[in-house]
Amino acid sequence: MITSQEEIAPRRGEKKKRALVLWSGGLDSTTLLAIVRQQGFEPVALLFRYGQRHAVEVEAASREAVRQKLQHHIVEIDLSAIGGSALTSGEIDVPRGRELEDMSTGSIPPTYVPARNTIFLSYSLAWAEVLEVADIFIGVNALDYSGYPDCRREYIDAFETMANLACKSSTEDGVEISIHTPLIDRTKAEIIRWGVELGVDYGATWSCYAPHWSAAAAEPLACGECDSCILRRKGFIEAGVSDPTRYR
Amino acid sequence: MITSQEEIAPRRGEKKKRALVLWSGGLDSTTLLAIVRQQGFEPVALLFRYGQRHAVEVEAASREAVRQKLQHHIVEIDLSAIGGSALTSGEIDVPRGRELEDMSTGSIPPTYVPARNTIFLSYSLAWAEVLEVADIFIGVNALDYSGYPDCRREYIDAFETMANLACKSSTEDGVEISIHTPLIDRTKAEIIRWGVELGVDYGATWSCYAPHWSAAAAEPLACGECDSCILRRKGFIEAGVSDPTRYR
Repeated sequence: MITSQEEIAPRRGEKKKRALVLWSGGLDSTTLLAIVRQQGFEPVALLFRYGQRHAVEVEAASREAVRQKLQHHIVEIDLSAIGGSALTSGEIDVPRGRELEDMSTGSIPPTYVPARNTIFLSYSLAWAEVLEVADIFIGVNALDYSGYPDCRREYIDAFETMANLACKSSTEDGVEISIHTPLIDRTKAEIIRWGVELGVDYGATWSCYAPHWSAAAAEPLACGECDSCILRRKGFIEAGVSDPTRYR
Repeated sequence: MITSQEEIAPRRGEKKKRALVLWSGGLDSTTLLAIVRQQGFEPVALLFRYGQRHAVEVEAASREAVRQKLQHHIVEIDLSAIGGSALTSGEIDVPRGRELEDMSTGSIPPTYVPARNTIFLSYSLAWAEVLEVADIFIGVNALDYSGYPDCRREYIDAFETMANLACKSSTEDGVEISIHTPLIDRTKAEIIRWGVELGVDYGATWSCYAPHWSAAAAEPLACGECDSCILRRKGFIEAGVSDPTRYR
C-alpha cells in the first residue's frame, strides 16, 4: 500500500494515469477525489447505489459528477436483500444523539454494512482490470470512532495482497495493484483542512445517515444527530472552517 | 483453509451447522453441494445472475434448487457493464474446438471474468455475517487447464485472511471464517466419480459456455466445442461414467 504523495505521483512525460476512486458523495471521498487529482491522476469514480435506505448521497454525487465532468460509473447492487445494517434495513435504527464517548467504545456500530467495503473494492478490481488501471483509491478512515473493521490498515493491506493474486492483470501482465488510503490516519478536521486547501465545495457533499425532508426546504436537511452528522460537525469546528451543512 | 472431511465435520450433538455454497448449477459446484451435505452441513446456496451472455446454468440451478428444497438466494448483479470476458461481453468470442495442449499453455483464457470469484466471495461474506455462518464453500479447481488466477489455493488463502479482517463477526464475535475448496486439487474425472458416489444427477447440471438452441429440441443443447464442454466430456470418459449431456 502506498499512501504518500511522492510515491504515487505518475512519472513525468507520460500520459496522465487514471485511478479508480470509490466515491460516495460524502465528505471523505469527495476530499479524496481532489487529492487524487492533486496527485496527478485522472480519476474514474465508482458510485454505488446499493440499496441504501436513502440515496441522497448518491444523488448529490451524480449531480456533482456531471458538474465536474468527472468520468464515473454508477454500480447498481442490492445489499438491502442481505440487510444486517441500519443503513440497508428498515428493521435496525440509526443511532441518534450519541456522545463521542459512546462512539469510541471500540464496538462496531449498527451502521456498519456487512462486507460493504469488500464488495465495493471487488467491483473496483474488476473495473481496474478492464480499464488497465493499477491504482485504486478508497477514503477509509480508521480514526474518528467509526469502529468499522473494513476501514483499518490491516484489512486494506490484506485486500491488496489478495487482489494481486486474483487478477489477470497482476498475475499475467505484471501490473501491481495498489489500494491507496491517504485519509486512513487523518482526523475529520485534518481532512476538511486538506480539502479546503484543494478547493473542495463541502456544501455539495452529503454525510447524514438519516436525512430529514420538510415541506419548507427544497432539499433534504441533515439530521444533526446521527454519528456521521456529529463527527462532521465536530470536524468543521475543530478545523476552524465554517460548516456549510444545512441541519434541520 | 480447511479441506478434509474430518476437520470440517460439525461437532456431534449440535444442531446442524449451515454453510454457504457458491453454486452455479454446473458440474463442479453441484458436486460441491453434495459434498457439503455429506459433511453434515445444511447448505445455503448462493446463485449469481451476473449478466452472463446466457443464463441456462442459473435456470437449471433454480429448477434444481426447488426440486431439492434447497435454501438458496439468487444475487442479481450486472458484470456485463464491466465486460472484459467472453462470458459477459458480446465483443469477445468463446474459444471453440481448442486442443487440450492449447488450454494448458498457462495463459488465462478469454472466458476468465475479471474479479468474478472475488465479487462472488465478497457477497458470500456479507451473507455469512448476517446468517452467522462461518463456513463458505466454493468449487474452484486449479487443475484441468482453467488457468484462472482466482481458482488457485494462494488466492483462496489470501481471500480467507482478508475476510477474517473484514467482518464484524470475525473481529468482534470471534467467528473464524473458513473458505473451503474440497475440489481444488481434483481432476474432472475424480470430481465426477465423487459426485456419482454421492448420487449427483449430472443430467441436471450445465457446463457449456455457448449453448445451442434448435427448433427440434425443447431444451438447449451443449455445444461440445467450448473449453468447458471439452473438459466435461473428457472427465466423463476418464471417470468411466456415461455422460448424460445432450450435445448438439
